[in-house]
Amino acid sequence: MPGDSTAYIAARGPRIEEALEAAMPPAGVLPGPLHEAMRYSLFAGGKRIRPLLVLASAEAVGGDPESVLPVACAAELIHTYSLIHDDLPSMDDSALRRGRPTCHVVFGEALAILAGDALHALAFELAAQTAERAGAAATLRAIQEIAAAIGTQGMVGGQVLDLLAEGRPSLGRFGSWPADRRQGVYLVHRWKTAALIRACVRSGAILSGAAAAQIADLTACGEHLGLAFQIVDDILDETGDSGVPDKLTFPYAFGIERSRAIAQEETGLAIAALAGWGASADVLRGLAHTLLVREG
Amino acid sequence: MPGDSTAYIAARGPRIEEALEAAMPPAGVLPGPLHEAMRYSLFAGGKRIRPLLVLASAEAVGGDPESVLPVACAAELIHTYSLIHDDLPSMDDSALRRGRPTCHVVFGEALAILAGDALHALAFELAAQTAERAGAAATLRAIQEIAAAIGTQGMVGGQVLDLLAEGRPSLGRFGSWPADRRQGVYLVHRWKTAALIRACVRSGAILSGAAAAQIADLTACGEHLGLAFQIVDDILDETGDSGVPDKLTFPYAFGIERSRAIAQEETGLAIAALAGWGASADVLRGLAHTLLVREG
Repeated sequence: MPGDSTAYIAARGPRIEEALEAAMPPAGVLPGPLHEAMRYSLFAGGKRIRPLLVLASAEAVGGDPESVLPVACAAELIHTYSLIHDDLPSMDDSALRRGRPTCHVVFGEALAILAGDALHALAFELAAQTAERAGAAATLRAIQEIAAAIGTQGMVGGQVLDLLAEGRPSLGRFGSWPADRRQGVYLVHRWKTAALIRACVRSGAILSGAAAAQIADLTACGEHLGLAFQIVDDILDETGDSGVPDKLTFPYAFGIERSRAIAQEETGLAIAALAGWGASADVLRGLAHTLLVREG
Repeated sequence: MPGDSTAYIAARGPRIEEALEAAMPPAGVLPGPLHEAMRYSLFAGGKRIRPLLVLASAEAVGGDPESVLPVACAAELIHTYSLIHDDLPSMDDSALRRGRPTCHVVFGEALAILAGDALHALAFELAAQTAERAGAAATLRAIQEIAAAIGTQGMVGGQVLDLLAEGRPSLGRFGSWPADRRQGVYLVHRWKTAALIRACVRSGAILSGAAAAQIADLTACGEHLGLAFQIVDDILDETGDSGVPDKLTFPYAFGIERSRAIAQEETGLAIAALAGWGASADVLRGLAHTLLVREG
């Protein structure tokens, strides 16, 4: 049984926060309200799972976490942009996130949309800086990984399928989706959440000069880990206060008990993908376990 | 007096359309409505100014237009995403663009926001492909140019300042901006429009291995050309049917006649920046002239 990753998170977390802080526009430059909105959502108590996975994956293949930090932070900026846009009135219409009013509630819809757009662009500007330490070719590969993971067959595509599955009236003319709820929820979660998490795990290794066989193992690890992560999120939403009953979720498609079992299976598969790896993969194994047993 | 660029546009335009078509997700793959929304806005009669400038700049320094095509198309995807988001009800609330209903009117707000987000991500995925012909280092530089040009001190920042200048009630607590309307309109146009146009002109040259002195000339050219382009847009909006009186525009700040003179001056400065260049820059000179005298 892998240990937890508390020590790793304590060791790397502050460096990630510092790098995110350094990546943001300095105080006092125009346009102040935009920067305020970006910071409001970026520094809102996020767990920094995606940057931690980039770093842990780099370290698993003998890379230097400091060298992959810009791509790690880019993944967090992208995650933050997606949360801001998902919360908008025309999407999930969420007034609260992590117990605080959402970005559009505080700053208005226009600034929220633009804060998301600015974080999205800044992510790629930042990711390109990784070349200084990791080289141009590997950095471009990481940029392509991440861009593909958040596009029409990834994060954004998953959000669209999620909205279609809800049967929003405004989308009615496009017909209903999916035909099979259990197949549908797998596809939505793979695209909406697992694709970026898998890209994070792959990118950390790509930027560290990993071999193809290592990247193949990490691809499987990231895919299962990303799916497990979203299933656990679904379960926490269902059992917590913020239940969203009519969304395409694992508990709704499979029931809570079966969902718990699937999350455990997927975590097991993520760890099994690294079966041939030594102690260098302990941090990734620990993170997979920690993400399964978390309570928030 | 530079000639017009009709022949150049006729020669390169179809190749740009073909490359844009090839860059879009193939028909029949999920999620159909997202792809439909992306295509609706991308193939809506745009003039393809930004891709043409990337190609013309590459050719001005002896580069191969085919090699810079992915970045050229990326700039058009980004421009399209920005139009979709700018038109949203919470921003400019435009129901028509180029005589057709805007994306959110046809597809709903959620799909319009997500179509913009997907075009934004696809732009960077596509831009990274330029490395195959232009090399990884130059491609990364172009990606950084473009990402910076569309961020908080570029396209998105300019849109925020534009909204602040309008004094939207939802932005009220952030105070009014600018103190000086004539200074304000220069900054907004530089950020909102000229930054990306300048990045296009620079990127074409960077990807073609241009010397620093050439890039410096093209930077000045792109900056003046971008400003002239937006002033002409303002004038056409004012004299056409789609007047938006309370926006921060050159005609509103300086009057129509002075605005026409400034557009002419800026076009002259764009052409003058290439004074030491030979016939290879004729296409750029011609485009600058064509953009000044256009009627739509």
